[in-house]
Amino acid sequence: MERRVRIDLAYDGTAYAGWQLQENAKTVQGIVEEALYRLQGDKPVRIRGAGRTDSGAHARGQVADASLSTRCHDDEIFRALSHMLPGDVRPVRVLTVPPAFHARHDATSKTYRYLLDTSAAGDPWWRRYALAFPHALDAAAVDAALAQLVGRRDFSGFTGSACTVPDRVRTVTDARRVAVGPGLTAFVFTADGFLTHMVRNLVGTLLLVGRGKIAPSSIAEILESRDRRRAGPTAPARGLCLTSVVYDEALGGASGDPLALW
Amino acid sequence: MERRVRIDLAYDGTAYAGWQLQENAKTVQGIVEEALYRLQGDKPVRIRGAGRTDSGAHARGQVADASLSTRCHDDEIFRALSHMLPGDVRPVRVLTVPPAFHARHDATSKTYRYLLDTSAAGDPWWRRYALAFPHALDAAAVDAALAQLVGRRDFSGFTGSACTVPDRVRTVTDARRVAVGPGLTAFVFTADGFLTHMVRNLVGTLLLVGRGKIAPSSIAEILESRDRRRAGPTAPARGLCLTSVVYDEALGGASGDPLALW
Repeated sequence: MERRVRIDLAYDGTAYAGWQLQENAKTVQGIVEEALYRLQGDKPVRIRGAGRTDSGAHARGQVADASLSTRCHDDEIFRALSHMLPGDVRPVRVLTVPPAFHARHDATSKTYRYLLDTSAAGDPWWRRYALAFPHALDAAAVDAALAQLVGRRDFSGFTGSACTVPDRVRTVTDARRVAVGPGLTAFVFTADGFLTHMVRNLVGTLLLVGRGKIAPSSIAEILESRDRRRAGPTAPARGLCLTSVVYDEALGGASGDPLALW
Repeated sequence: MERRVRIDLAYDGTAYAGWQLQENAKTVQGIVEEALYRLQGDKPVRIRGAGRTDSGAHARGQVADASLSTRCHDDEIFRALSHMLPGDVRPVRVLTVPPAFHARHDATSKTYRYLLDTSAAGDPWWRRYALAFPHALDAAAVDAALAQLVGRRDFSGFTGSACTVPDRVRTVTDARRVAVGPGLTAFVFTADGFLTHMVRNLVGTLLLVGRGKIAPSSIAEILESRDRRRAGPTAPARGLCLTSVVYDEALGGASGDPLALW
């Protein structure tokens, strides 16, 4: 008897070529599928992730689903995954869900966070999870720019060229700057969906705003123009983290904790 | 003209054989001395650290001092060290101090923190900085045990056999448990000085108390007995961090931030 299982995951993506399965590259999807393959007695499994995190990007609230034939209870699957997966990819929760559950389609919103280390020499503990950015940020300008992102917008101007999705309209419900601690700043984005490199392109542009190189109103202009060439550079993946994915309570509710400091 | 310079440092000690210089091993002292050697145009330098952190242990508030002949300003030395040191050893502050300054002798107190990850599968972001300890802790028992440490005590019962210091009396001014976040607990110890493996032996014993294997009163009994064999095992170095060293304001005040969450 097959059943549908939801698997919440946290990972340090430093050593991985992103979430999505690739030939000849270590990916998070690949390593989780391999563990489930062994768990089921060498029966191949395909999992579906809520977000296709980039190479080097992290997750604290990734959600995957899989159809499994094992008779193990959810907590036994959790312990087996905890044992089989490496230290940089950890199960957070395993939950049997209705057969129709789909990690990506059933998500009602997702939250990504981008961490910035603004200290003079960089913090050794955060170097894997934050972009070293030893500059003063104009907080008022950044906040004014972030405010222009909230709402239903066409994000073509902030979408990477690799994106194959024709519909570039997404609804951003929250876009904010959070001073996490001395020298550590987070940008937090919640939306009904994200496009290829969208958060990293937004951050690259916000950093230009924060340093006074372009005006906060540039954000609205880039959105209006739908022209990717007008936005800033793509910020490095290391600062990016998928912190939470929201589902109906009947499907297990939200993963992760969008308010956690790390 | 030589002058005395105080250098505050933060490091991820995972890849180092501790602070203290060793032949044929990479140490934090060695790597900082090498950077200063180059900074001074190949003139050898010996630095003195406030605390000899163990192999694999970390620091966010280590303090070293050196006698330097360079004419560079403090901020130039800071930038040069930031450029020359690797990403896991970072300068936090460089300050010219009175010639008699001694990083260890002038310290009026030090704070060490030990991090515990009590989540079921371990947190991938904290695996370098916290001991994976997926167990429930009896918080009241741990707190009762911690209270017995505060005061002027002979810590022979918690001192590693490698310790060469005959006087084992130290004054602990603070010993507390802090719930840092979901699944993350810290033990914080402030004293006028620490002995070899003292914090790790205390933590190893506190974990026995927290799991109900020995009574909170065991701490007082081990102190009284001065018998190392009665204490618990030495907790692994990865959870240990030198968070702050306190000096008079005239010498630059405290390093680090004992209240920071990470």
